[in-house]
Amino acid sequence: MPGNSRAAGTHHSRPSSSEEPPDLEDQELLLAAAYVSDAQYNRNVPFETSPQAIRLYHFYNHWTMRAATYFFIWVNLALALFEEPAVFPLPFLVTSIAEVLCLTAFFGRLVHFAKVTPQKVFWKDTKNICVMVTIVLTLIDLVIYGSLEAVNIRGVRWSRALRPVFLINFPESRQIRRTFRSIRNTLPDILYVFLLFLFSMMIFSLMALKLFGDRDLRTVEGSPYFTNILDIAFELYVLVTTANSPDVMMPAYELNWWYSLYFITYIIINTYIFMSVFLAVIYNNYRKHLKNEIHTLAYLKHHKMTEAFNILKVKVGTEFVVKEARWRRLVKVVAPDVSSSHLELLLRISDEGQKGHVDKVNFLRLADLLNIRVVAINIKKHPLETWMPRVYQSSTSLLVQKMVQHRIFVWVYDVIILINAIFIALDEKDSLISYAEWLFLSLYIIEILLKLYTYEPSAYFGRKQFWNWFDTLIIIAALLATVANTTIQARKYNSQQVLDIVLILRILRLLRVIVSIQRFRVIVTTLINIGPTMLTFGGLVLVVYYAFAIIGMEVFHGKIHFLDPGSGSPDALVCGNPALKDSAFAQGRYCKNNFNDLASSLILLTELTVVNQWHILADGFALVTHQAAKLYFIGFHVVVVILIVNIFIAFILEAFFVAYSLEKSEVETAIEKKIQELGVGVQEEEVQNGGLIDNMDAKDSGFSADEGDNKKKDLKGLYFRIASKKYKTVDTLLQQMFESEIAPEGKDPSLKEILSFSPKKVNFDNSA
Amino acid sequence: MPGNSRAAGTHHSRPSSSEEPPDLEDQELLLAAAYVSDAQYNRNVPFETSPQAIRLYHFYNHWTMRAATYFFIWVNLALALFEEPAVFPLPFLVTSIAEVLCLTAFFGRLVHFAKVTPQKVFWKDTKNICVMVTIVLTLIDLVIYGSLEAVNIRGVRWSRALRPVFLINFPESRQIRRTFRSIRNTLPDILYVFLLFLFSMMIFSLMALKLFGDRDLRTVEGSPYFTNILDIAFELYVLVTTANSPDVMMPAYELNWWYSLYFITYIIINTYIFMSVFLAVIYNNYRKHLKNEIHTLAYLKHHKMTEAFNILKVKVGTEFVVKEARWRRLVKVVAPDVSSSHLELLLRISDEGQKGHVDKVNFLRLADLLNIRVVAINIKKHPLETWMPRVYQSSTSLLVQKMVQHRIFVWVYDVIILINAIFIALDEKDSLISYAEWLFLSLYIIEILLKLYTYEPSAYFGRKQFWNWFDTLIIIAALLATVANTTIQARKYNSQQVLDIVLILRILRLLRVIVSIQRFRVIVTTLINIGPTMLTFGGLVLVVYYAFAIIGMEVFHGKIHFLDPGSGSPDALVCGNPALKDSAFAQGRYCKNNFNDLASSLILLTELTVVNQWHILADGFALVTHQAAKLYFIGFHVVVVILIVNIFIAFILEAFFVAYSLEKSEVETAIEKKIQELGVGVQEEEVQNGGLIDNMDAKDSGFSADEGDNKKKDLKGLYFRIASKKYKTVDTLLQQMFESEIAPEGKDPSLKEILSFSPKKVNFDNSA
Repeated sequence: MPGNSRAAGTHHSRPSSSEEPPDLEDQELLLAAAYVSDAQYNRNVPFETSPQAIRLYHFYNHWTMRAATYFFIWVNLALALFEEPAVFPLPFLVTSIAEVLCLTAFFGRLVHFAKVTPQKVFWKDTKNICVMVTIVLTLIDLVIYGSLEAVNIRGVRWSRALRPVFLINFPESRQIRRTFRSIRNTLPDILYVFLLFLFSMMIFSLMALKLFGDRDLRTVEGSPYFTNILDIAFELYVLVTTANSPDVMMPAYELNWWYSLYFITYIIINTYIFMSVFLAVIYNNYRKHLKNEIHTLAYLKHHKMTEAFNILKVKVGTEFVVKEARWRRLVKVVAPDVSSSHLELLLRISDEGQKGHVDKVNFLRLADLLNIRVVAINIKKHPLETWMPRVYQSSTSLLVQKMVQHRIFVWVYDVIILINAIFIALDEKDSLISYAEWLFLSLYIIEILLKLYTYEPSAYFGRKQFWNWFDTLIIIAALLATVANTTIQARKYNSQQVLDIVLILRILRLLRVIVSIQRFRVIVTTLINIGPTMLTFGGLVLVVYYAFAIIGMEVFHGKIHFLDPGSGSPDALVCGNPALKDSAFAQGRYCKNNFNDLASSLILLTELTVVNQWHILADGFALVTHQAAKLYFIGFHVVVVILIVNIFIAFILEAFFVAYSLEKSEVETAIEKKIQELGVGVQEEEVQNGGLIDNMDAKDSGFSADEGDNKKKDLKGLYFRIASKKYKTVDTLLQQMFESEIAPEGKDPSLKEILSFSPKKVNFDNSA
Repeated sequence: MPGNSRAAGTHHSRPSSSEEPPDLEDQELLLAAAYVSDAQYNRNVPFETSPQAIRLYHFYNHWTMRAATYFFIWVNLALALFEEPAVFPLPFLVTSIAEVLCLTAFFGRLVHFAKVTPQKVFWKDTKNICVMVTIVLTLIDLVIYGSLEAVNIRGVRWSRALRPVFLINFPESRQIRRTFRSIRNTLPDILYVFLLFLFSMMIFSLMALKLFGDRDLRTVEGSPYFTNILDIAFELYVLVTTANSPDVMMPAYELNWWYSLYFITYIIINTYIFMSVFLAVIYNNYRKHLKNEIHTLAYLKHHKMTEAFNILKVKVGTEFVVKEARWRRLVKVVAPDVSSSHLELLLRISDEGQKGHVDKVNFLRLADLLNIRVVAINIKKHPLETWMPRVYQSSTSLLVQKMVQHRIFVWVYDVIILINAIFIALDEKDSLISYAEWLFLSLYIIEILLKLYTYEPSAYFGRKQFWNWFDTLIIIAALLATVANTTIQARKYNSQQVLDIVLILRILRLLRVIVSIQRFRVIVTTLINIGPTMLTFGGLVLVVYYAFAIIGMEVFHGKIHFLDPGSGSPDALVCGNPALKDSAFAQGRYCKNNFNDLASSLILLTELTVVNQWHILADGFALVTHQAAKLYFIGFHVVVVILIVNIFIAFILEAFFVAYSLEKSEVETAIEKKIQELGVGVQEEEVQNGGLIDNMDAKDSGFSADEGDNKKKDLKGLYFRIASKKYKTVDTLLQQMFESEIAPEGKDPSLKEILSFSPKKVNFDNSA
């Protein structure tokens, strides 16, 4: 907890002597750098401030260590692919050794963390306890399962369902944890709505029993209709998911059309109103808790930056400042790979008056400044122009360049793509059409060559030129695949895999049309912007899916088999299990939907998430085991569809609204203003418009930034632009909403104030 | 348009003489009352300010006129029940006469409106043009159809699909129109997302054709799988609605499990992401436009109140005010049924200093004050206490009263209800259980009698005591129905209808449990609060359903018949149409889902809204007509599910958030403060807590409010409370959000300022 670290660290704020010591102690610089770096990445890990601990902490945060942790987490999760029931079977010895290795790595990471953080904080943190308990449980499970295996008894590897715990509980997965916390906080509110929903279901079940139970009605399959209260409750739950509409209504509707009103009322109340209320409650809570957490994060950032400032400050005149040299060293430690031109720009923004020192307000902005990607652009001649200027500048050459830059060029290629689409839709067995494929391929290659001739190649393939890269990679891949396919075909060998890839690549080329329609590009860019945050969501889904898949495999493994229906075996028609005879499951040919390995399980769970026909799947597995198996499927529906999908929708809605309302942050605007003032700006539109870059070069190592007075000169010929907003996370966006509320000047709020501000005092430890 | 009316009306603001004329002219009072009334109900109908026009305008707004208009609108819509294809057939002559009558009424209403409003405004308003065009078209259609009928040719009554135009275009349906406008404004944004969505579907269709087209795969039904690009596109559109998942995937999945990734990718992109983007875009636009419109409405209200003030004002000292007598007369005209005690309270709030006049700021609040329902409560003795005080105050009687008021009494009855639920679930053919039914019924009646004994009856059945009314009505209805049923059964005659009603009422009694669980009550109250606004939504749905139902009946009428499957006729299995042989439609026994009359059509459209199995329904109707029939079903899906259901969700979300964030408005708080200051307040909790009212009486005609100085005394013994927030519309809630932004004092914004403020200048005419 930063509180403790501060308590331990305050003595470091040196007596502010007006005389500056010749050199700052390295370890103090490291401490300040740790604070700034934590502020930059929103890490809230409390750490000891002893020199050794700080060094360990820097190492703990090093990317190699984090990558290694993720590597082991993924290996550990992937083990389910190789364990019985396996997609790729491996002996138990191999997988268990791998698992023990992973556990060791996790334990090592934990020990490392224990060395960094104060003891008291370490043992108070539920995350660490969780990881330790899971390690111990997994070891116990391994030993038991191994011993049973040795005497040929097949045990249950239940601890595998706990593996996602590692993904959640390491400090790197802050976002996933936050979503989980958001769910947990929503639960009490959801619970009462859910109970009321169940109550309403019960009332309707009773009505159905009374209205239809004695009528001797039959369903389409000929089974009795609405005679058993438990069956009715299940059917009505399925109706909430709409999966058995309108079938469930038909027998009653055939009897009398008035009875349809019963079902319509039920659907309006339980499907439309209750499900919307679930979304409203979840969304409202999501917003509220997100706001609180982000607020806390923003305050903590401010606090950490103040901490760093207090370490580095010296008194100049009446105010405390950080000297330029010290500031430079700090930035070099925090961001070792920042280019010197970028550093110069940051300094120019932080030290506006060029007084040789950075004041507090500007110092506090450093974490945000470092988060903004600024690309240094150097205007550079086309290599051909340097190489043979006469030819490149000749009138023919200029005409070609003008032609390529013209909008008609884009339109012509759009038409070509459309014609291509029609050719693809036609049967390509005709040799004329397969020749046409070569024609289109060459046309696309000519287009890329022409563009490379017109635009400076290294600018065309700049770091943020997503669409150019996409274009070129698709074409090259299609070229390679087509060549490979032709070679293979020439040898009378037909590879379906290669052909499939060729086909898909050929069709993906059509996506290029999106680039030339501006409105489409905007929508796609927005989607790509919220992409990274959606990945967080993918992590959450993975955790839940994994746990359910492991449970499903343990319970339903081997009950249902997919046998090739071509074999004509009668077993194939009932999925190898006579209990499924005449069931909708077997009739729907759903045998492949089983829990026989991890891949099948995950696909089946995806189908359950989509909801449709889930009751048939649930019925099938209930038939081969027990009616209670339906509880597994209902549980999955409640957790994934009612909770997680609604959070996903809340998530997308919020991301969209934030993206709409906060196009650019204040800090970014400040940087841009400075760039414009210095006359070294390039409009983003100029750069990104249709991916056309006019003789510019993304260049990261511009000029050597010697101290001195020739800064103005240094910046000449070099242009900057803010990298597109693509890489901004929702986190960043939301923090900007609250930053304006934090008083930037003068009195820093004490940690106590921050904590008392935060409405979630109790959970504060876990918000790291 | 108020602009014009103001231009015409400004000359009415009399030269502000410091001398007050003995009596205010009646017609000026009427004009001011018209402004105030328009402000109160948010009507933005521009009217002429000539004395005759104002009288006509008052008559135009009279509730009888509006009720008559609604009556004719409903009769007109209901005609579809009696016209071929009819639920209750009537000859064409009867329905056509009824329709002509309705049209005459609409025309009359329109002429009335034309007399009230300035000519120029009338002809500029698209609403009026719409109504006129629809009247003419309907008449033309009636004549053509009638003549064809006369020579025995069955024509198409296409104009019936236009009937909802009347529901939308009369000024009373402001809310429905606003929702429509909101949809229209959203369309351009939605369009591009939709195009991109179609593009993505096309790309995936092409891929599916190439990947699966040549594999000679078969669906479960044995038909070729993914061989025709149009079929694929339809199947993939259905997959977006999830209605054919996972069936559409199974053949490819059986071939190779990698192919499932194609479908999962498709579902993630098109079902989850695109559908969420639709919701986000619709919700964002909905919020934006709602905000604009409400903002405009709030400004217009302010403007109208200023207008009224200018008519009535006189100069007292340095400021303009409205004299008390004049103010009283105004309120009496605007709200003739306001009780004198209520009037006194309003005056006390408006004229805080009791100076005998109302200043501008307070005058402007009048419209809001009138909208707040204040209930005057008079503490009254129990009639039994008056009648026989000795018995009622005896220790036994007091013990009974104490018992009934105790929480345990509520719990005991909750337990009784639960036991009742179990008995209902059991088979009631057992005579013991049917006797138990009588026992429960008497227990419930005893409960109500005990409560009436304890609480003052007229307070127990107060106007806002929803749950008490609910309780009593359910019990009485159940008693009556049970008695009726027993009588009938005693005569060996078994009426299914009566029995059904008895059963439903018996089960609805269980709802009483909700009252005693506080959290449930809160949720239900919130739902009831947004109920009135949801009704608006019902209007919108009705309009769309009606139009689609009429089109569906014209196109698909008589193609599919429901024949009793018990008859054993082979026709019954194919719904009377051989084209349906072996179709999923016939196999699913969907014959009753047809367009053969209005009721069936509406039920079918409801099923399509629920989405599940809609492709089977679409396929069925395509088989009996033409493949193009699927366009009707796709169109319905796009309009209802993608647009309207998303607006509904946006609507519920917004209503919930507004309800969360704005519990009480400022104006209400002011009234409450005043009530408290005067010491005549009653806490809402005291009144509503568990529906228990302690000796209070909702009374609307308290004391005669003579002018004079005995006001304080008058208010003694009389208590007020703000009626619960139940009756507040989202409209009111939202306006409160913006009212704070309007400068209340001094300089009124001119209409030009209001208009230039409103971002939707062009559509302003239609915002009425």
